[in-house]
Amino acid sequence: MGTVVGNVWATRKEDDLSGLKFLFIQPERPDGSSVEPPFIAVDRIGAGFGDKVIVTRGSAAANMTGLTKLPIDALVVGIIDSIDVEKKEVNGRG
Amino acid sequence: MGTVVGNVWATRKEDDLSGLKFLFIQPERPDGSSVEPPFIAVDRIGAGFGDKVIVTRGSAAANMTGLTKLPIDALVVGIIDSIDVEKKEVNGRG
Amino acid sequence: MGTVVGNVWATRKEDDLSGLKFLFIQPERPDGSSVEPPFIAVDRIGAGFGDKVIVTRGSAAANMTGLTKLPIDALVVGIIDSIDVEKKEVNGRG
Amino acid sequence: MGTVVGNVWATRKEDDLSGLKFLFIQPERPDGSSVEPPFIAVDRIGAGFGDKVIVTRGSAAANMTGLTKLPIDALVVGIIDSIDVEKKEVNGRG
Amino acid sequence: MGTVVGNVWATRKEDDLSGLKFLFIQPERPDGSSVEPPFIAVDRIGAGFGDKVIVTRGSAAANMTGLTKLPIDALVVGIIDSIDVEKKEVNGRG
Repeated sequence: MGTVVGNVWATRKEDDLSGLKFLFIQPERPDGSSVEPPFIAVDRIGAGFGDKVIVTRGSAAANMTGLTKLPIDALVVGIIDSIDVEKKEVNGRG
Repeated sequence: MGTVVGNVWATRKEDDLSGLKFLFIQPERPDGSSVEPPFIAVDRIGAGFGDKVIVTRGSAAANMTGLTKLPIDALVVGIIDSIDVEKKEVNGRG
Repeated sequence: MGTVVGNVWATRKEDDLSGLKFLFIQPERPDGSSVEPPFIAVDRIGAGFGDKVIVTRGSAAANMTGLTKLPIDALVVGIIDSIDVEKKEVNGRG
Repeated sequence: MGTVVGNVWATRKEDDLSGLKFLFIQPERPDGSSVEPPFIAVDRIGAGFGDKVIVTRGSAAANMTGLTKLPIDALVVGIIDSIDVEKKEVNGRG
Repeated sequence: MGTVVGNVWATRKEDDLSGLKFLFIQPERPDGSSVEPPFIAVDRIGAGFGDKVIVTRGSAAANMTGLTKLPIDALVVGIIDSIDVEKKEVNGRG
Protein backbone atom coordinates (compact mmCIF):
# COMPACT_ATOMS: atom_id res chain seq x y z
CA MET A 1 0.00 0.00 0.00
CA GLY A 2 1.25 3.53 -0.74
CA THR A 3 0.44 7.07 -1.83
CA VAL A 4 1.29 8.62 -5.20
CA VAL A 5 3.73 11.48 -4.42
CA GLY A 6 5.20 12.41 -7.80
CA ASN A 7 5.94 11.79 -11.49
CA VAL A 8 9.06 10.70 -13.40
CA TRP A 9 9.90 11.47 -17.05
CA ALA A 10 12.62 9.55 -18.98
CA THR A 11 12.93 9.95 -22.75
CA ARG A 12 15.86 7.51 -23.21
CA LYS A 13 14.42 4.12 -22.12
CA GLU A 14 14.46 0.38 -22.93
CA ASP A 15 12.32 0.16 -26.11
CA ASP A 16 9.38 -1.80 -24.62
CA LEU A 17 8.76 0.83 -21.94
CA SER A 18 7.91 3.74 -24.22
CA GLY A 19 4.38 5.05 -23.66
CA LEU A 20 4.22 3.84 -20.06
CA LYS A 21 3.62 6.29 -17.18
CA PHE A 22 6.06 6.27 -14.22
CA LEU A 23 4.93 7.46 -10.76
CA PHE A 24 6.75 7.94 -7.44
CA ILE A 25 5.02 5.93 -4.68
CA GLN A 26 5.56 6.44 -0.94
CA PRO A 27 5.01 3.02 0.76
CA GLU A 28 2.93 3.28 3.95
CA ARG A 29 1.33 1.41 6.84
CA PRO A 30 -2.49 1.35 7.03
CA ASP A 31 -2.32 4.42 9.35
CA GLY A 32 -0.55 6.42 6.63
CA SER A 33 2.88 6.58 8.26
CA SER A 34 5.77 6.06 5.80
CA VAL A 35 7.58 2.70 5.72
CA GLU A 36 10.52 2.84 3.28
CA PRO A 37 11.89 5.40 0.79
CA PRO A 38 9.68 6.19 -2.26
CA PHE A 39 10.10 3.98 -5.34
CA ILE A 40 9.13 4.21 -9.02
CA ALA A 41 6.13 2.22 -10.34
CA VAL A 42 4.37 1.89 -13.72
CA ASP A 43 0.71 2.95 -13.84
CA ARG A 44 -1.96 2.02 -16.43
CA ILE A 45 -5.14 2.62 -14.46
CA GLY A 46 -4.87 6.39 -14.11
CA ALA A 47 -3.70 6.89 -10.52
CA GLY A 48 -2.91 10.49 -9.70
CA PHE A 49 -1.12 12.58 -7.11
CA GLY A 50 -2.37 11.82 -3.55
CA ASP A 51 -4.20 8.58 -4.48
CA LYS A 52 -3.86 5.62 -2.06
CA VAL A 53 -2.90 2.64 -4.22
CA ILE A 54 -2.19 -1.11 -4.11
CA VAL A 55 1.20 -1.82 -5.74
CA THR A 56 2.56 -5.20 -6.89
CA ARG A 57 6.34 -5.31 -6.52
CA GLY A 58 8.94 -7.66 -7.95
CA SER A 59 8.78 -9.59 -11.20
CA ALA A 60 5.04 -10.35 -10.81
CA ALA A 61 4.55 -6.70 -11.84
CA ALA A 62 5.45 -7.88 -15.36
CA ASN A 63 2.37 -10.18 -15.49
CA MET A 64 0.30 -7.48 -17.24
CA THR A 65 -2.28 -8.83 -19.72
CA GLY A 66 -1.73 -8.24 -23.42
CA LEU A 67 1.94 -7.40 -23.11
CA THR A 68 5.04 -9.51 -23.41
CA LYS A 69 6.93 -9.62 -20.13
CA LEU A 70 8.34 -6.15 -19.54
CA PRO A 71 11.45 -5.37 -17.50
CA ILE A 72 9.43 -3.64 -14.74
CA ASP A 73 9.38 -4.46 -11.02
CA ALA A 74 6.51 -2.31 -9.66
CA LEU A 75 2.97 -1.82 -11.01
CA VAL A 76 -0.01 0.07 -9.60
CA VAL A 77 -2.81 -2.58 -9.62
CA GLY A 78 -5.56 -0.84 -7.67
CA ILE A 79 -6.76 2.56 -6.43
CA ILE A 80 -8.02 2.06 -2.86
CA ASP A 81 -11.60 3.08 -2.00
CA SER A 82 -11.43 2.17 1.71
CA ILE A 83 -9.70 -0.05 4.23
CA ASP A 84 -10.66 -1.33 7.70
CA VAL A 85 -7.88 -2.48 9.99
CA GLU A 86 -8.16 -3.42 13.69
CA LYS A 87 -5.22 -2.24 15.88
CA LYS A 88 -3.28 -5.43 16.77
CA GLU A 89 0.25 -4.13 17.02
CA VAL A 90 0.12 -3.16 20.73
CA ASN A 91 3.15 -5.33 21.67
CA GLY A 92 4.89 -5.48 18.28
CA ARG A 93 7.58 -3.31 16.60
CA GLY A 94 5.64 -3.71 13.30
CA MET B 1 3.37 -16.48 8.80
CA GLY B 2 0.94 -13.69 9.78
CA THR B 3 -2.44 -12.70 11.13
CA VAL B 4 -5.32 -11.22 9.10
CA VAL B 5 -5.86 -7.71 10.53
CA GLY B 6 -8.10 -6.03 7.98
CA ASN B 7 -9.71 -5.67 4.54
CA VAL B 8 -9.01 -3.46 1.50
CA TRP B 9 -11.57 -2.38 -1.14
CA ALA B 10 -10.51 -1.03 -4.55
CA THR B 11 -13.03 -0.66 -7.37
CA ARG B 12 -10.56 0.71 -9.99
CA LYS B 13 -8.11 -2.17 -10.57
CA GLU B 14 -6.04 -3.91 -13.26
CA ASP B 15 -8.65 -5.89 -15.24
CA ASP B 16 -7.45 -9.39 -14.25
CA LEU B 17 -7.79 -8.66 -10.53
CA SER B 18 -11.52 -7.98 -10.40
CA GLY B 19 -13.36 -10.40 -8.14
CA LEU B 20 -10.33 -11.10 -5.95
CA LYS B 21 -10.41 -10.40 -2.19
CA PHE B 22 -7.62 -8.25 -0.66
CA LEU B 23 -6.67 -8.62 3.02
CA PHE B 24 -4.23 -6.79 5.32
CA ILE B 25 -1.76 -9.26 6.86
CA GLN B 26 0.44 -8.51 9.89
CA PRO B 27 3.63 -10.63 9.50
CA GLU B 28 4.69 -12.31 12.77
CA ARG B 29 7.17 -14.60 14.51
CA PRO B 30 5.89 -17.95 15.79
CA ASP B 31 5.36 -16.31 19.23
CA GLY B 32 2.93 -13.81 17.68
CA SER B 33 5.13 -10.69 17.94
CA SER B 34 5.00 -8.44 14.85
CA VAL B 35 7.91 -8.49 12.40
CA GLU B 36 7.38 -5.87 9.67
CA PRO B 37 4.58 -3.44 8.73
CA PRO B 38 1.32 -5.00 7.44
CA PHE B 39 1.04 -5.74 3.70
CA ILE B 40 -1.80 -6.52 1.28
CA ALA B 41 -2.38 -10.12 0.10
CA VAL B 42 -4.93 -11.82 -2.16
CA ASP B 43 -7.08 -14.53 -0.55
CA ARG B 44 -9.09 -17.33 -2.26
CA ILE B 45 -9.45 -19.82 0.60
CA GLY B 46 -11.71 -17.76 2.86
CA ALA B 47 -9.34 -16.47 5.55
CA GLY B 48 -11.00 -14.05 7.95
CA PHE B 49 -10.13 -11.46 10.56
CA GLY B 50 -7.82 -12.89 13.28
CA ASP B 51 -6.89 -16.05 11.35
CA LYS B 52 -3.22 -17.15 11.49
CA VAL B 53 -2.19 -17.78 7.89
CA ILE B 54 0.69 -18.98 5.69
CA VAL B 55 1.41 -16.36 2.97
CA THR B 56 3.50 -16.83 -0.18
CA ARG B 57 5.23 -13.57 -1.13
CA GLY B 58 6.90 -12.44 -4.33
CA SER B 59 6.10 -13.57 -7.88
CA ALA B 60 5.46 -17.19 -6.81
CA ALA B 61 2.16 -15.84 -5.47
CA ALA B 62 1.07 -15.69 -9.13
CA ASN B 63 1.41 -19.51 -9.51
CA MET B 64 -2.31 -20.00 -8.77
CA THR B 65 -3.93 -22.95 -10.61
CA GLY B 66 -6.33 -22.23 -13.44
CA LEU B 67 -5.39 -18.61 -13.87
CA THR B 68 -2.97 -16.92 -16.22
CA LYS B 69 -0.16 -15.32 -14.26
CA LEU B 70 -1.63 -12.38 -12.37
CA PRO B 71 0.24 -9.23 -11.29
CA ILE B 72 0.08 -10.12 -7.56
CA ASP B 73 2.96 -10.50 -5.09
CA ALA B 74 1.27 -11.97 -1.98
CA LEU B 75 -1.23 -14.85 -1.67
CA VAL B 76 -2.76 -16.53 1.39
CA VAL B 77 -2.01 -20.27 0.79
CA GLY B 78 -2.99 -21.84 4.12
CA ILE B 79 -4.97 -21.23 7.32
CA ILE B 80 -2.86 -22.53 10.23
CA ASP B 81 -4.34 -25.16 12.55
CA SER B 82 -1.33 -25.43 14.89
CA ILE B 83 2.42 -24.96 15.11
CA ASP B 84 5.11 -26.38 17.42
CA VAL B 85 8.36 -24.46 17.69
CA GLU B 86 11.23 -25.10 20.14
CA LYS B 87 12.86 -21.94 21.59
CA LYS B 88 16.32 -21.80 19.94
CA GLU B 89 16.90 -18.09 19.78
CA VAL B 90 18.53 -17.74 23.25
CA ASN B 91 21.69 -16.05 21.84
CA GLY B 92 20.27 -14.66 18.60
CA ARG B 93 18.78 -11.25 17.70
CA GLY B 94 16.26 -13.10 15.47
CA MET C 1 21.33 -21.36 5.58
CA GLY C 2 19.15 -22.13 8.64
CA THR C 3 18.08 -24.62 11.29
CA VAL C 4 14.74 -26.44 11.41
CA VAL C 5 13.03 -25.21 14.62
CA GLY C 6 9.44 -26.40 14.25
CA ASN C 7 6.45 -27.68 12.27
CA VAL C 8 3.29 -26.06 10.88
CA TRP C 9 -0.04 -27.79 10.21
CA ALA C 10 -2.73 -26.24 7.98
CA THR C 11 -5.71 -28.28 6.78
CA ARG C 12 -7.35 -25.47 4.73
CA LYS C 13 -4.86 -24.74 1.92
CA GLU C 14 -4.59 -23.78 -1.77
CA ASP C 15 -5.45 -27.06 -3.57
CA ASP C 16 -1.98 -27.68 -5.07
CA LEU C 17 -0.27 -27.59 -1.68
CA SER C 18 -2.04 -30.54 -0.06
CA GLY C 19 0.37 -33.31 0.93
CA LEU C 20 3.34 -30.96 1.32
CA LYS C 21 5.21 -30.65 4.66
CA PHE C 22 5.71 -27.16 6.16
CA LEU C 23 8.63 -26.45 8.52
CA PHE C 24 9.72 -23.41 10.55
CA ILE C 25 13.29 -22.41 9.63
CA GLN C 26 15.49 -20.08 11.73
CA PRO C 27 17.87 -18.32 9.26
CA GLU C 28 21.46 -18.15 10.55
CA ARG C 29 25.03 -17.07 9.88
CA PRO C 30 27.66 -19.77 9.43
CA ASP C 31 28.50 -19.41 13.17
CA GLY C 32 24.91 -20.35 14.10
CA SER C 33 23.77 -16.93 15.32
CA SER C 34 20.24 -15.99 14.19
CA VAL C 35 19.80 -13.50 11.36
CA GLU C 36 16.10 -12.73 10.84
CA PRO C 37 12.83 -14.04 12.30
CA PRO C 38 11.89 -17.66 11.46
CA PHE C 39 9.93 -18.29 8.24
CA ILE C 40 7.91 -21.20 6.81
CA ALA C 41 9.40 -23.45 4.09
CA VAL C 42 8.20 -26.54 2.19
CA ASP C 43 10.27 -29.71 2.64
CA ARG C 44 10.39 -32.82 0.42
CA ILE C 45 13.74 -34.32 1.39
CA GLY C 46 12.94 -35.27 4.97
CA ALA C 47 14.61 -32.54 7.03
CA GLY C 48 13.85 -32.80 10.75
CA PHE C 49 14.03 -30.77 13.91
CA GLY C 50 17.58 -29.40 14.52
CA ASP C 51 18.87 -30.12 10.99
CA LYS C 52 21.07 -27.43 9.36
CA VAL C 53 19.60 -26.88 5.90
CA ILE C 54 20.09 -24.95 2.64
CA VAL C 55 16.87 -23.09 1.74
CA THR C 56 15.96 -21.53 -1.61
CA ARG C 57 13.78 -18.45 -1.11
CA GLY C 58 11.61 -16.50 -3.51
CA SER C 59 9.86 -17.77 -6.63
CA ALA C 60 12.76 -20.07 -7.58
CA ALA C 61 11.48 -22.29 -4.76
CA ALA C 62 8.67 -23.24 -7.18
CA ASN C 63 11.16 -24.76 -9.68
CA MET C 64 10.63 -28.25 -8.21
CA THR C 65 10.92 -31.16 -10.73
CA GLY C 66 7.76 -32.91 -11.85
CA LEU C 67 5.34 -30.36 -10.50
CA THR C 68 3.61 -27.46 -12.12
CA LYS C 69 4.76 -24.20 -10.58
CA LEU C 70 3.39 -24.02 -7.05
CA PRO C 71 2.60 -20.86 -5.07
CA ILE C 72 5.48 -21.39 -2.62
CA ASP C 73 8.37 -19.01 -1.81
CA ALA C 74 10.71 -21.16 0.33
CA LEU C 75 11.95 -24.74 -0.22
CA VAL C 76 14.47 -26.86 1.72
CA VAL C 77 16.91 -28.01 -1.02
CA GLY C 78 19.72 -29.58 1.02
CA ILE C 79 20.59 -30.97 4.45
CA ILE C 80 24.08 -29.70 5.33
CA ASP C 81 26.80 -32.24 6.16
CA SER C 82 29.57 -29.71 6.89
CA ILE C 83 30.76 -26.19 6.15
CA ASP C 84 34.17 -24.50 6.32
CA VAL C 85 34.21 -20.71 6.58
CA GLU C 86 37.24 -18.46 7.25
CA LYS C 87 36.55 -15.51 9.64
CA LYS C 88 36.61 -12.39 7.36
CA GLU C 89 34.07 -10.20 9.06
CA VAL C 90 36.56 -8.49 11.44
CA ASN C 91 35.68 -4.93 10.28
CA GLY C 92 32.16 -5.52 8.96
CA ARG C 93 28.72 -5.33 10.61
CA GLY C 94 27.83 -8.47 8.58
CA MET D 1 16.17 5.25 -8.81
CA GLY D 2 19.95 5.71 -8.46
CA THR D 3 23.15 7.27 -9.73
CA VAL D 4 25.90 5.54 -11.73
CA VAL D 5 29.02 5.65 -9.47
CA GLY D 6 31.42 3.21 -11.12
CA ASN D 7 32.32 0.32 -13.43
CA VAL D 8 33.03 -3.39 -12.93
CA TRP D 9 35.17 -5.62 -15.17
CA ALA D 10 35.01 -9.44 -15.04
CA THR D 11 36.61 -11.59 -17.72
CA ARG D 12 35.56 -14.99 -16.25
CA LYS D 13 31.75 -14.99 -16.44
CA GLU D 14 28.73 -17.25 -17.10
CA ASP D 15 28.80 -17.71 -20.91
CA ASP D 16 25.58 -15.79 -21.68
CA LEU D 17 26.83 -12.60 -19.99
CA SER D 18 29.87 -11.94 -22.17
CA GLY D 19 29.66 -8.58 -23.93
CA LEU D 20 27.40 -7.01 -21.33
CA LYS D 21 28.45 -3.84 -19.43
CA PHE D 22 28.33 -3.86 -15.61
CA LEU D 23 27.89 -0.63 -13.64
CA PHE D 24 27.88 0.24 -9.92
CA ILE D 25 24.62 2.01 -8.98
CA GLN D 26 24.09 3.98 -5.76
CA PRO D 27 20.33 3.70 -4.93
CA GLU D 28 18.83 7.04 -3.81
CA ARG D 29 15.70 8.85 -2.65
CA PRO D 30 14.24 11.53 -4.93
CA ASP D 31 16.27 14.15 -2.97
CA GLY D 32 19.53 12.37 -3.88
CA SER D 33 20.33 10.98 -0.41
CA SER D 34 21.65 7.40 -0.48
CA VAL D 35 19.34 4.53 0.52
CA GLU D 36 21.28 1.25 0.58
CA PRO D 37 24.80 0.15 -0.37
CA PRO D 38 25.70 0.30 -4.10
CA PHE D 39 24.88 -2.74 -6.25
CA ILE D 40 25.88 -4.01 -9.70
CA ALA D 41 23.52 -3.64 -12.69
CA VAL D 42 23.70 -4.47 -16.42
CA ASP D 43 23.42 -1.52 -18.84
CA ARG D 44 22.55 -1.59 -22.58
CA ILE D 45 21.35 1.98 -23.10
CA GLY D 46 24.66 3.77 -22.58
CA ALA D 47 24.36 5.17 -19.05
CA GLY D 48 27.56 6.80 -17.84
CA PHE D 49 29.20 7.99 -14.66
CA GLY D 50 26.95 10.46 -12.74
CA ASP D 51 23.77 9.69 -14.72
CA LYS D 52 20.49 9.43 -12.71
CA VAL D 53 18.87 6.18 -13.82
CA ILE D 54 15.75 3.99 -13.36
CA VAL D 55 16.81 0.42 -12.48
CA THR D 56 14.63 -2.72 -12.57
CA ARG D 57 15.72 -5.16 -9.86
CA GLY D 58 14.95 -8.83 -9.33
CA SER D 59 14.20 -11.42 -12.00
CA ALA D 60 12.15 -8.95 -14.10
CA ALA D 61 15.57 -7.55 -15.11
CA ALA D 62 15.94 -10.69 -17.26
CA ASN D 63 12.90 -9.70 -19.40
CA MET D 64 15.17 -7.93 -21.90
CA THR D 65 13.82 -8.01 -25.47
CA GLY D 66 15.50 -10.36 -27.95
CA LEU D 67 17.49 -12.32 -25.40
CA THR D 68 16.82 -15.64 -23.76
CA LYS D 69 16.34 -15.15 -20.02
CA LEU D 70 19.72 -14.22 -18.57
CA PRO D 71 20.87 -14.82 -14.99
CA ILE D 72 20.84 -11.08 -14.10
CA ASP D 73 18.93 -9.35 -11.29
CA ALA D 74 19.42 -5.62 -12.05
CA LEU D 75 19.08 -3.73 -15.35
CA VAL D 76 19.29 -0.01 -16.15
CA VAL D 77 16.00 0.67 -18.02
CA GLY D 78 15.95 4.47 -18.22
CA ILE D 79 18.15 7.57 -17.96
CA ILE D 80 16.13 10.17 -16.02
CA ASP D 81 15.58 13.63 -17.60
CA SER D 82 13.70 15.16 -14.69
CA ILE D 83 11.50 14.36 -11.70
CA ASP D 84 9.06 16.35 -9.59
CA VAL D 85 8.17 15.10 -6.13
CA GLU D 86 6.08 16.96 -3.49
CA LYS D 87 7.45 16.71 0.11
CA LYS D 88 5.00 14.38 1.98
CA GLU D 89 7.22 12.61 4.44
CA VAL D 90 6.95 15.18 7.29
CA ASN D 91 5.87 12.57 9.88
CA GLY D 92 7.41 9.42 8.36
CA ARG D 93 10.73 7.61 8.91
CA GLY D 94 10.66 6.90 5.10
CA MET E 1 29.18 -7.97 -5.18
CA GLY E 2 30.83 -10.20 -2.55
CA THR E 3 33.80 -12.31 -1.52
CA VAL E 4 33.92 -16.12 -1.38
CA VAL E 5 34.48 -16.98 2.34
CA GLY E 6 33.74 -20.70 2.52
CA ASN E 7 32.29 -23.97 1.22
CA VAL E 8 29.15 -26.00 2.01
CA TRP E 9 28.69 -29.75 1.57
CA ALA E 10 25.26 -31.42 1.52
CA THR E 11 24.80 -35.00 0.40
CA ARG E 12 21.00 -35.14 0.84
CA LYS E 13 19.64 -32.64 -1.70
CA GLU E 14 16.75 -32.01 -4.14
CA ASP E 15 17.55 -34.35 -7.05
CA ASP E 16 18.30 -31.62 -9.65
CA LEU E 17 21.01 -30.03 -7.50
CA SER E 18 23.40 -32.98 -7.29
CA GLY E 19 26.80 -32.17 -8.77
CA LEU E 20 26.52 -28.44 -8.12
CA LYS E 21 29.08 -26.60 -5.95
CA PHE E 22 27.83 -24.45 -3.03
CA LEU E 23 29.88 -21.52 -1.73
CA PHE E 24 29.47 -19.08 1.18
CA ILE E 25 29.51 -15.47 -0.09
CA GLN E 26 30.03 -12.40 2.12
CA PRO E 27 28.14 -9.51 0.42
CA GLU E 28 30.15 -6.26 0.39
CA ARG E 29 30.28 -2.60 -0.66
CA PRO E 30 32.84 -1.60 -3.30
CA ASP E 31 35.26 -0.66 -0.47
CA GLY E 32 35.14 -4.25 0.84
CA SER E 33 33.16 -3.56 4.03
CA SER E 34 30.51 -6.22 4.79
CA VAL E 35 26.84 -5.47 4.09
CA GLU E 36 24.67 -8.35 5.27
CA PRO E 37 25.30 -11.83 6.71
CA PRO E 38 26.91 -14.39 4.36
CA PHE E 39 24.61 -16.46 2.11
CA ILE E 40 24.95 -19.65 0.05
CA ALA E 41 25.32 -19.45 -3.76
CA VAL E 42 25.81 -22.02 -6.54
CA ASP E 43 29.03 -21.71 -8.58
CA ARG E 44 29.81 -23.15 -12.04
CA ILE E 45 32.67 -20.91 -13.14
CA GLY E 46 35.29 -22.02 -10.64
CA ALA E 47 35.32 -19.22 -8.06
CA GLY E 48 37.54 -19.97 -5.08
CA PHE E 49 38.21 -18.78 -1.57
CA GLY E 50 38.95 -15.01 -1.45
CA ASP E 51 37.70 -14.28 -4.99
CA LYS E 52 35.62 -11.08 -5.48
CA VAL E 53 32.53 -12.13 -7.41
CA ILE E 54 29.35 -10.81 -9.05
CA VAL E 55 26.33 -12.75 -7.73
CA THR E 56 22.82 -12.84 -9.20
CA ARG E 57 20.23 -13.27 -6.45
CA GLY E 58 16.59 -14.26 -6.58
CA SER E 59 14.87 -16.44 -9.15
CA ALA E 60 16.91 -15.00 -12.07
CA ALA E 61 19.71 -17.17 -10.68
CA ALA E 62 17.82 -20.15 -12.19
CA ASN E 63 18.21 -18.73 -15.74
CA MET E 64 21.32 -20.85 -16.35
CA THR E 65 21.81 -22.08 -19.97
CA GLY E 66 21.29 -25.74 -20.74
CA LEU E 67 19.45 -26.56 -17.55
CA THR E 68 15.79 -26.71 -16.73
CA LYS E 69 14.93 -24.11 -14.14
CA LEU E 70 16.53 -25.17 -10.87
CA PRO E 71 15.31 -24.31 -7.35
CA ILE E 72 18.27 -21.99 -6.64
CA ASP E 73 18.20 -18.31 -5.61
CA ALA E 74 21.87 -17.25 -5.85
CA LEU E 75 24.42 -17.89 -8.62
CA VAL E 76 28.02 -16.68 -9.04
CA VAL E 77 27.98 -15.12 -12.56
CA GLY E 78 31.36 -13.39 -12.71
CA ILE E 79 34.80 -13.27 -11.07
CA ILE E 80 35.76 -9.57 -10.79
CA ASP E 81 39.04 -8.40 -12.37
CA SER E 82 38.78 -4.76 -11.28
CA ILE E 83 36.33 -2.02 -10.33
CA ASP E 84 36.52 1.78 -10.31
CA VAL E 85 34.10 3.66 -8.06
CA GLU E 86 34.09 7.40 -7.25
CA LYS E 87 33.26 8.26 -3.59
CA LYS E 88 29.73 9.81 -3.71
CA GLU E 89 28.29 8.77 -0.37
CA VAL E 90 29.43 11.89 1.55
CA ASN E 91 25.92 12.77 2.82
CA GLY E 92 24.21 9.36 2.65
CA ARG E 93 23.82 6.51 5.16
CA GLY E 94 24.45 4.10 2.19
